[in-house]
Amino acid sequence: MMKWWGWGSPDFEFPMHEKPDLWPWIVDELNLKGIEPVKAVGRDKVSLAAPIRNDAFCRELDAALHVGQFTFDEEQRLLHSYGKSYPDLFRVRQGIVRRAPDAVVFPERHADVETIVKAAHRHGVEVIPFGGGTNIVGGVNPLKTERMVVTIDMARMNRVLSIDAESLTAVIEAGALGPKLEQDLQSKGFSLGHYPDSFEYSSLGGWVATRSAGMQSDAYGKIEHMVVALKMVTPSGTLATRNVPAASSGPDLNRLMTGSEGTLGVITECTMRIHRTPPVKDYRGFLFKSFEEGVKAIHECVNTHNLPSLIRLQDGYETQLGMRMKTPAKGIEGFIQRRVKAYLKSRGYTYPAIMIVGFEGDKAHVAKVRAATFKILKKHQGFHLGTSVGKTWSKDKFNLPYLRDYVMDYGCMVDVSETSTPWSNVLPLYHKTVAAIKERFASPDHPGKGKGFIGCHLSHTYKTGACLYFTYGARQVPGQELEQYYGYKGMITELFMKNGATLSHHHAVGTEHQPWMEEEVSRTGIQALRAIKTSLDPKAIFNPGKLIPTAAPTENGNGASSKHADPTISGR
Amino acid sequence: MMKWWGWGSPDFEFPMHEKPDLWPWIVDELNLKGIEPVKAVGRDKVSLAAPIRNDAFCRELDAALHVGQFTFDEEQRLLHSYGKSYPDLFRVRQGIVRRAPDAVVFPERHADVETIVKAAHRHGVEVIPFGGGTNIVGGVNPLKTERMVVTIDMARMNRVLSIDAESLTAVIEAGALGPKLEQDLQSKGFSLGHYPDSFEYSSLGGWVATRSAGMQSDAYGKIEHMVVALKMVTPSGTLATRNVPAASSGPDLNRLMTGSEGTLGVITECTMRIHRTPPVKDYRGFLFKSFEEGVKAIHECVNTHNLPSLIRLQDGYETQLGMRMKTPAKGIEGFIQRRVKAYLKSRGYTYPAIMIVGFEGDKAHVAKVRAATFKILKKHQGFHLGTSVGKTWSKDKFNLPYLRDYVMDYGCMVDVSETSTPWSNVLPLYHKTVAAIKERFASPDHPGKGKGFIGCHLSHTYKTGACLYFTYGARQVPGQELEQYYGYKGMITELFMKNGATLSHHHAVGTEHQPWMEEEVSRTGIQALRAIKTSLDPKAIFNPGKLIPTAAPTENGNGASSKHADPTISGR
Repeated sequence: MMKWWGWGSPDFEFPMHEKPDLWPWIVDELNLKGIEPVKAVGRDKVSLAAPIRNDAFCRELDAALHVGQFTFDEEQRLLHSYGKSYPDLFRVRQGIVRRAPDAVVFPERHADVETIVKAAHRHGVEVIPFGGGTNIVGGVNPLKTERMVVTIDMARMNRVLSIDAESLTAVIEAGALGPKLEQDLQSKGFSLGHYPDSFEYSSLGGWVATRSAGMQSDAYGKIEHMVVALKMVTPSGTLATRNVPAASSGPDLNRLMTGSEGTLGVITECTMRIHRTPPVKDYRGFLFKSFEEGVKAIHECVNTHNLPSLIRLQDGYETQLGMRMKTPAKGIEGFIQRRVKAYLKSRGYTYPAIMIVGFEGDKAHVAKVRAATFKILKKHQGFHLGTSVGKTWSKDKFNLPYLRDYVMDYGCMVDVSETSTPWSNVLPLYHKTVAAIKERFASPDHPGKGKGFIGCHLSHTYKTGACLYFTYGARQVPGQELEQYYGYKGMITELFMKNGATLSHHHAVGTEHQPWMEEEVSRTGIQALRAIKTSLDPKAIFNPGKLIPTAAPTENGNGASSKHADPTISGR
Repeated sequence: MMKWWGWGSPDFEFPMHEKPDLWPWIVDELNLKGIEPVKAVGRDKVSLAAPIRNDAFCRELDAALHVGQFTFDEEQRLLHSYGKSYPDLFRVRQGIVRRAPDAVVFPERHADVETIVKAAHRHGVEVIPFGGGTNIVGGVNPLKTERMVVTIDMARMNRVLSIDAESLTAVIEAGALGPKLEQDLQSKGFSLGHYPDSFEYSSLGGWVATRSAGMQSDAYGKIEHMVVALKMVTPSGTLATRNVPAASSGPDLNRLMTGSEGTLGVITECTMRIHRTPPVKDYRGFLFKSFEEGVKAIHECVNTHNLPSLIRLQDGYETQLGMRMKTPAKGIEGFIQRRVKAYLKSRGYTYPAIMIVGFEGDKAHVAKVRAATFKILKKHQGFHLGTSVGKTWSKDKFNLPYLRDYVMDYGCMVDVSETSTPWSNVLPLYHKTVAAIKERFASPDHPGKGKGFIGCHLSHTYKTGACLYFTYGARQVPGQELEQYYGYKGMITELFMKNGATLSHHHAVGTEHQPWMEEEVSRTGIQALRAIKTSLDPKAIFNPGKLIPTAAPTENGNGASSKHADPTISGR
């Protein structure tokens, strides 16, 4: 499990000391001079309300499960109280736990989940499916309720059950975290190839439930493209689909379970498309004169079928951050690097955009795609930086959430907003979003006095468009930290919705994006989702209040939770 | 519109006279010697029951639509009575029309559809969305009912509304038939690239509603992979999704509408992924020593990313048919062909399997993929036949349904069953299915006395499996033609369901596959589908009796319509 007060391993903090160029730059960009860091409160300052116990339910579970599977342990309850969103961490760092689950249960097989769900349904106990707890949209947080709330932690269901080496599929239990799953598959010569930023602490079931996208999605697809069949336990029985490559037997129920965010049931087993572990993995860096030029290059790669397995373009601002993440080279290497930098500056790379491209496969395949890709990138004046940038990025890619914790110590709001949009709208949307956030930095009530961090990268490409991923940071408004956060969040999301983009490309809905669900999928779409929910989960025990707006739609309003405000504060 | 009594243009019949080798072979294979052909009855022998009129509904439509949009014309009613399945044609050829729609309405824009659906919902009039009428699973047939039934023929909504050339998407009205749609797109330099066997007479909306697969699906995907956004009019309002390349905003509602077979609403507009018209199209023929060897070659192409846009492997039996479809060459060409044949025979190609491979794209791309593919095919002893086989196949590919009509004149049952299965099961399933059908040919009550047609091709490949498409034909059992047909259909479908295959890969469910829906998607899956149906269409006016089993599930049975029997005969 991760730290209760922040991201990742309790034994690890962001290695700021290894990056001497980074902190001075952040201090300047966020206007943090003179601020003293404040850590999360001590564990002793955190107290949870006494758990609600549904005795009949507890008796049933105690009888059916063995010791250690069903616990009221306060440590466990705390660890399952929140995901890892900015407001989650903002609260828990101060010792605020609004609603902890009353108990945590650890099923060890599909039949355990059926037992738990049947008992919960019978006795009206709310359940929250929990994978690794990395959710950043409020998806695993218990909401206000008088009913008993039990978190179903899937951690012990983490086995690869079978591999069909000929068909390249594997049946995997949903609780497997990224590293375990890849280790088990790779020991047999296979890989799923799904590497979201949360990889180290997120689970297969969580990826499927939230429609996650991994770094190599250009090669292997988003998680929904890898799903072949699923098993999901609902209060109305187990929904199971067939292990077949394609079908036309009605609406695709895999896609009903995928993205259901624990509101319809618990996903227990996933039949996934896998591939043979690629013998060659080759990561390279390229520098472009501008984000715009890099976007054009990527789009040409997509259009000409010359697509690396990974392509990630950081805008000028994120590139500045990336460059400062590097430990400065010394001696001759440092001398060369400074010369290269000076040379590039003289050639017009004054505020460049860095691109990471990754190639995976056998030697011949990698050589072929790499040659074709390089030709296109160079045509767009991409400057080849070699393999070292790729290596630095590879090393740091899972460390960025730790950096958020570090910066939060200094009283900063840090969050991300990601979306997807058609190619014709990628650059217009990029510019509009950056401008809107900068405008907010410039507002008189911003304590950063015009300063703040707003960077973006383009990752995850499709024939028809791409994902834009914005990261922003600013000094907190003391005493109004959450209002400030929901102000930014709401403003950016509104901008996405009004400008031809999606509510979320791979972070899901939870509570944070729920107010816009009707704009996203139409009122009739919401009605369809509610109908499934009501039928499969008539007592509304599964992750209530998440994903699907619960208020009845009205003629004049969208009927959803209010926008621009913490949707979990009022009424629930 | 097509012939009321058979497939395709009333001016066209299968050009048997151009294929002198074909008919003698069919006569022998099906044991048809001495049978005199019997054509469909004359139009004068067909009479329809007087239409049921819901006056309030009719008044509303007359007021809202212009003359010619809403008709009780008997010609139109007849043409919309059936799809083109074998039992459909078997009945209508004898003049049997079990239930015609009472009227046909032709919307010309999205707003017309909203008007029609609102009125139908208000007055309890059943509606059946109709594209081109090529459905072969009973999907467009009105079933027994006392309510008025109106077929919504989408033919006039056939425009390409807009093209985003940069993002490679087009918004297209759902009623566009294949040829019109391709013509409109190609005149602007684009193509959808969806060519199902029914291409000439099927519509975009029909493809989406039934999860169709085109011949080039290896390059462009099944229709569901090309859908970017949809608009569907339901009795509860219009369900609309966003034009974005990917999202994680809950279950994918595109995939709820795709495959809904007119049971939830009418699809009116589709935002589709398109591509630039490929400058080069290159079709080749290859000969393999066996179906098994050809399957191995295809699987290797899939596994090494060397995939033509089309790859279609016919088994030995279908190859025999294909060879006899060709007009025999004369003179020197004929001499050469005979020599090649003899040579091949001497090298072990005694009962060969023919493969058509197609390459599309720019010259360089085609050259690259072709070279890599040829290498693999030759490794598996594929003998390159050049471009002429590809051309013959291209020419004949849309003519096969006409051949069915021709053979039906001679008292034959002809049908197809298609499925998909993981690679590890492709050959086992192939052998089991062929053996089971041959066993039936050998049964004492088979009038063909052991003779019959059973061929198969593999088309539509995926990383994890492929589609198998079986065609079978046999002499009819006089007086028991439909029982015979449902006997074969039921036997093959049971075999698919018990042996790790899907109910249908691209022909959809309708009434013909409905009895197996619970086995396909589980009881809880059916419950989810019913819940959506009941919510969006509370009066059950949309294509009632199709796709979703209507009977309540019972504890011991699947509760669906009975198997091995015409599901439309009893009770409905």
